[in-house]
Amino acid sequence: MEKPLVAIIMGSDSDLPIMQDAAKMLDEFGVAYELTIVSAHRTPDRMYEYAHSALQKGVKVIIAGAGGSAHLPGMVASLTPLPVIGVPIKTTALDGLDSLLSIVQMPPGIPVATVAVNGAKNAGILAASILGTTDAPLQKKISVYKEQLKKEVTEKAEKLERVTYKKYLDEKK
Amino acid sequence: MEKPLVAIIMGSDSDLPIMQDAAKMLDEFGVAYELTIVSAHRTPDRMYEYAHSALQKGVKVIIAGAGGSAHLPGMVASLTPLPVIGVPIKTTALDGLDSLLSIVQMPPGIPVATVAVNGAKNAGILAASILGTTDAPLQKKISVYKEQLKKEVTEKAEKLERVTYKKYLDEKK
Amino acid sequence: MEKPLVAIIMGSDSDLPIMQDAAKMLDEFGVAYELTIVSAHRTPDRMYEYAHSALQKGVKVIIAGAGGSAHLPGMVASLTPLPVIGVPIKTTALDGLDSLLSIVQMPPGIPVATVAVNGAKNAGILAASILGTTDAPLQKKISVYKEQLKKEVTEKAEKLERVTYKKYLDEKK
Amino acid sequence: MEKPLVAIIMGSDSDLPIMQDAAKMLDEFGVAYELTIVSAHRTPDRMYEYAHSALQKGVKVIIAGAGGSAHLPGMVASLTPLPVIGVPIKTTALDGLDSLLSIVQMPPGIPVATVAVNGAKNAGILAASILGTTDAPLQKKISVYKEQLKKEVTEKAEKLERVTYKKYLDEKK
Amino acid sequence: MEKPLVAIIMGSDSDLPIMQDAAKMLDEFGVAYELTIVSAHRTPDRMYEYAHSALQKGVKVIIAGAGGSAHLPGMVASLTPLPVIGVPIKTTALDGLDSLLSIVQMPPGIPVATVAVNGAKNAGILAASILGTTDAPLQKKISVYKEQLKKEVTEKAEKLERVTYKKYLDEKK
Amino acid sequence: MEKPLVAIIMGSDSDLPIMQDAAKMLDEFGVAYELTIVSAHRTPDRMYEYAHSALQKGVKVIIAGAGGSAHLPGMVASLTPLPVIGVPIKTTALDGLDSLLSIVQMPPGIPVATVAVNGAKNAGILAASILGTTDAPLQKKISVYKEQLKKEVTEKAEKLERVTYKKYLDEKK
Amino acid sequence: MEKPLVAIIMGSDSDLPIMQDAAKMLDEFGVAYELTIVSAHRTPDRMYEYAHSALQKGVKVIIAGAGGSAHLPGMVASLTPLPVIGVPIKTTALDGLDSLLSIVQMPPGIPVATVAVNGAKNAGILAASILGTTDAPLQKKISVYKEQLKKEVTEKAEKLERVTYKKYLDEKK
Amino acid sequence: MEKPLVAIIMGSDSDLPIMQDAAKMLDEFGVAYELTIVSAHRTPDRMYEYAHSALQKGVKVIIAGAGGSAHLPGMVASLTPLPVIGVPIKTTALDGLDSLLSIVQMPPGIPVATVAVNGAKNAGILAASILGTTDAPLQKKISVYKEQLKKEVTEKAEKLERVTYKKYLDEKK
Repeated sequence: MEKPLVAIIMGSDSDLPIMQDAAKMLDEFGVAYELTIVSAHRTPDRMYEYAHSALQKGVKVIIAGAGGSAHLPGMVASLTPLPVIGVPIKTTALDGLDSLLSIVQMPPGIPVATVAVNGAKNAGILAASILGTTDAPLQKKISVYKEQLKKEVTEKAEKLERVTYKKYLDEKK
Repeated sequence: MEKPLVAIIMGSDSDLPIMQDAAKMLDEFGVAYELTIVSAHRTPDRMYEYAHSALQKGVKVIIAGAGGSAHLPGMVASLTPLPVIGVPIKTTALDGLDSLLSIVQMPPGIPVATVAVNGAKNAGILAASILGTTDAPLQKKISVYKEQLKKEVTEKAEKLERVTYKKYLDEKK
Repeated sequence: MEKPLVAIIMGSDSDLPIMQDAAKMLDEFGVAYELTIVSAHRTPDRMYEYAHSALQKGVKVIIAGAGGSAHLPGMVASLTPLPVIGVPIKTTALDGLDSLLSIVQMPPGIPVATVAVNGAKNAGILAASILGTTDAPLQKKISVYKEQLKKEVTEKAEKLERVTYKKYLDEKK
Repeated sequence: MEKPLVAIIMGSDSDLPIMQDAAKMLDEFGVAYELTIVSAHRTPDRMYEYAHSALQKGVKVIIAGAGGSAHLPGMVASLTPLPVIGVPIKTTALDGLDSLLSIVQMPPGIPVATVAVNGAKNAGILAASILGTTDAPLQKKISVYKEQLKKEVTEKAEKLERVTYKKYLDEKK
Repeated sequence: MEKPLVAIIMGSDSDLPIMQDAAKMLDEFGVAYELTIVSAHRTPDRMYEYAHSALQKGVKVIIAGAGGSAHLPGMVASLTPLPVIGVPIKTTALDGLDSLLSIVQMPPGIPVATVAVNGAKNAGILAASILGTTDAPLQKKISVYKEQLKKEVTEKAEKLERVTYKKYLDEKK
Repeated sequence: MEKPLVAIIMGSDSDLPIMQDAAKMLDEFGVAYELTIVSAHRTPDRMYEYAHSALQKGVKVIIAGAGGSAHLPGMVASLTPLPVIGVPIKTTALDGLDSLLSIVQMPPGIPVATVAVNGAKNAGILAASILGTTDAPLQKKISVYKEQLKKEVTEKAEKLERVTYKKYLDEKK
Repeated sequence: MEKPLVAIIMGSDSDLPIMQDAAKMLDEFGVAYELTIVSAHRTPDRMYEYAHSALQKGVKVIIAGAGGSAHLPGMVASLTPLPVIGVPIKTTALDGLDSLLSIVQMPPGIPVATVAVNGAKNAGILAASILGTTDAPLQKKISVYKEQLKKEVTEKAEKLERVTYKKYLDEKK
Repeated sequence: MEKPLVAIIMGSDSDLPIMQDAAKMLDEFGVAYELTIVSAHRTPDRMYEYAHSALQKGVKVIIAGAGGSAHLPGMVASLTPLPVIGVPIKTTALDGLDSLLSIVQMPPGIPVATVAVNGAKNAGILAASILGTTDAPLQKKISVYKEQLKKEVTEKAEKLERVTYKKYLDEKK
């Protein structure tokens, strides 16, 4: 098995349905990753060890998802010189505004690269683009991926311009 | 020197002008405390040791103030069975809403007893009332303090009822 | 029957599905409690008597849940020297932001120990940790509970590291 | 001295610079009022007595101003069948959003007639318009007052239409 | 038919499921009212005439409900010396925060007595309490109503204290 | 086929169920339009070309809908001297507050005419009213449309005044 | 004097320091305008007449600024088939969020073209771009203006690239 | 001169007092950068060229700061496979919440690594940590920097523990 370059961690397995999107993007880009649960609040010692050992294991980028008082991304960032990407998980009470502010408003000295609420897919792409800064084939894959996004939009646009919007909507159903 | 029953910690010495209000209340109640700086993000190891050792040192309640991505209260709470009181410090960018949500929205299992934005004074009183649950003289002091608050309000009310509000405001200046 | 050390009160029986989580935690820790409805707005006299008599009855900590213009926790706190824990109940209109701000933003002199929106479970744990400051076996139970949380997370983490995340999610369904 | 028809109460004398605007409007309309300090949190017993006795004293409308966890208007409303007007006082931390939500989001059964943040002037006018429902001369005064507002705006509009806006602004300085 | 003392108006018949709660309360108190649709934006002339004629028709209090850019309560208030109660209707996009701020933040001179989001029931009670200031039997009914609320809460409290909370919840289903 | 005077564009075909409301209004007013997908982020080059060529094609007004970090309306506005109407699409995480602020808070020099969250219908009407400034028959149609709105409200009001509100609600079901 | 094509109105002369920016832009583009005060709440009749007569006077676009419960833009829009641009004025209490939501969240049928909080300058540009849809020389002026903005940015960028940022900041002082 | 590895761009030179913090951090880490003004709205063509050419020039990471409808970071991210760090600049009207949401809520496919409001210093550190993933000496510098932060906190903590907090505050003045 390939050594993981990216670590995807989350505070709870209830975050997995969202966080799997990061894994899927890395699968698509062929980037090796590991994925596990690390809770800042329920397993603080595990978090310390995990964050401290990531660099030694060869991990280059850490993706951390958490909700509510979302401390995992920021605490991991305080424990490693690696770039940490934070994914604010949407919460039932405050719609993820709590998660977003808990993750993004880090004090000077300890950044967390924050993506959108539930933006795990983008966390995967961002991790790849970070690795891509010194991995030209991977960077190329990101460009190809963006081309693909563009192609999908263009095809939909062409269809929508060809048919009426009513027909377009009917066929989508 | 008396052994501290309360630990007052804060993420940065820029929080001290606010956090001293907790100390002042404990001074008033005659509760021994220690006060220091512990940064979740800049001194994570110190935070671990501090939180782990507090119980052994005889500390009964921890008051932790922090602003922005305010992780100190929640992380300390995850590392100790002691009750932790969180003080959200007002921030320049988002007025302390970020601090408040970061501290109060803790996940099930790890509570933080959160007070108002910049509410360090109340954190001191709350710590005293916690200790007061098994310290009748201290609990009495809290009742006396509340009586004092009441007396101050009543005196002001009496004055305001006696003079016109214009005169009251003039004399306040 | 054991004398209750904790009083769990709520503004309406519609809060009970949330507030029962506090009771469940206290059951788990073996802490005697009483649970009832006290509405600040609909039964103000009952609230006064309840708050005034709690101390005499031997109650050590009060947990109060309320939603919207959530005045119960703060009013009870103004009427007793006991520590009061406030649980903001999620509302349909403003998602509990109204409840949270009504409870947490108490004026200097009268603190309420506020937990997360719908965080009744944490209110129970916080009450236990307050009692635990002078009840070593109870404090130990909290440590054991936290160990249990840790164990659950660790087991899930181990499983997730063993199987693929797809399989993990399939098995969870 | 005339018996007061309106009671203006506030949680703290720090609210007086704002709350005096209610008094000024009632002075202008010739409505007798009393004005005092009643703190829900620091003088709960005084609040009870005050709210319970207002009706007997002949008070018809109560104006209550408070900030932060602003419980005074709602608690007074729970203790009297009189209409209660709530004035949310602007706070330094959360700009009065906390005061507004604490006052306006009352549960079914106990309304508070809420005006704008710091809207004490409008509280005075609203009290007068309530009394005016059965006091034709007072109601007439409100209509005259509104005519006066209209006249002031019209005069300013005429001036602004006559001179350039630059000159208008220069002369205002 | 009795001459209406209260006018209940709303911007759209989609607000009726909420606004009927005001009517129901007035029915309960035996207060005559009229209820209709007046849109500030779609029937501005109708709104002018309605607001101007309300006083002449003998209406004493106007209850106006509206959502989003909720201009109806404030515009009606600008056109009549009668007290106007505003009911912010919950919106799908911004949860009624837009409605609340549009209604409550009126400029000096033109108050709107604002109740909670979707708080039509309280609008009805507030209207009755306004009329009750000079109608002792009606004021008495409000006191009786509050007694009834108190009784309901007390009965529920007694039941909850008698049975376990689990049983209470089971029986509620 | 008539040359389009209005261009309706959106960032994704998932916005079409909302954005079709703009098309429907233009259909009703007999204004020729084109409708397509242009993503600021996924098809930036297409957006450039589209925005640059709109004026030459004879388009007079552009309606652009987008959600989240909604950059389409503002970017198109920066690339054309034509008026651009922005429609903030409601998002699942933050209810469209993100879309609204992203679109409306444009810097000095580059305005976007922003309508309500999901307000595509109003975008269509606004586009027509812009064209109507120099197209009297079209302007007339807008007046007629507003008369129609008025008529619908008036008919509903008349019905509601005729029957009881209970019956009205029953018949609506 | 040229007949005004744009009407700039505002709820109060306290809005003039902001609203003059709209006038300045129209001066720069050579577009004739009139500017006056029209208060929705204090001069509702004047607002009716003003809105009803604007079309007859030859006005093509109305710019309306207002703060708090900002009803002027929406009410004017309900009274005219002309396009109405709304400028939310920043308020002291809620920072203009109240003004923004009051103006932008208009119901289906009556749009207001909303610009940024205090965005009067952009309101002027938007009005010009609306007139520019059938006035090629004016449209050209907008393009020239945008070129000028671009030139200013480019010159600053060139300077910043030439000197160090420290020197750039020193020279700006 | 060394070829820049990081590009620091901002929408306006008014952002420079904040954005210089990113440059200062890169200076401290010895990372070559270029710094210039690129406005998404006022120089869209320049932005296109800049974003398209960055990769070819050897830039590895782009830091983009912008305020209000902050489109620069997201648009640049759509035009390059390089990682883009977004810095939300605090605004006068909405405190930077608009900037934050405009930058962070990017749609799937195009991430922006967002830091705190005005968090330019952290943007510099994040850029360094990204480059550090394949530059061990740079990564070491980040670890050293974090050690330095820790040392500063520890020294302050030691001083605060040695002297009284009153003395500490006096000496800070």
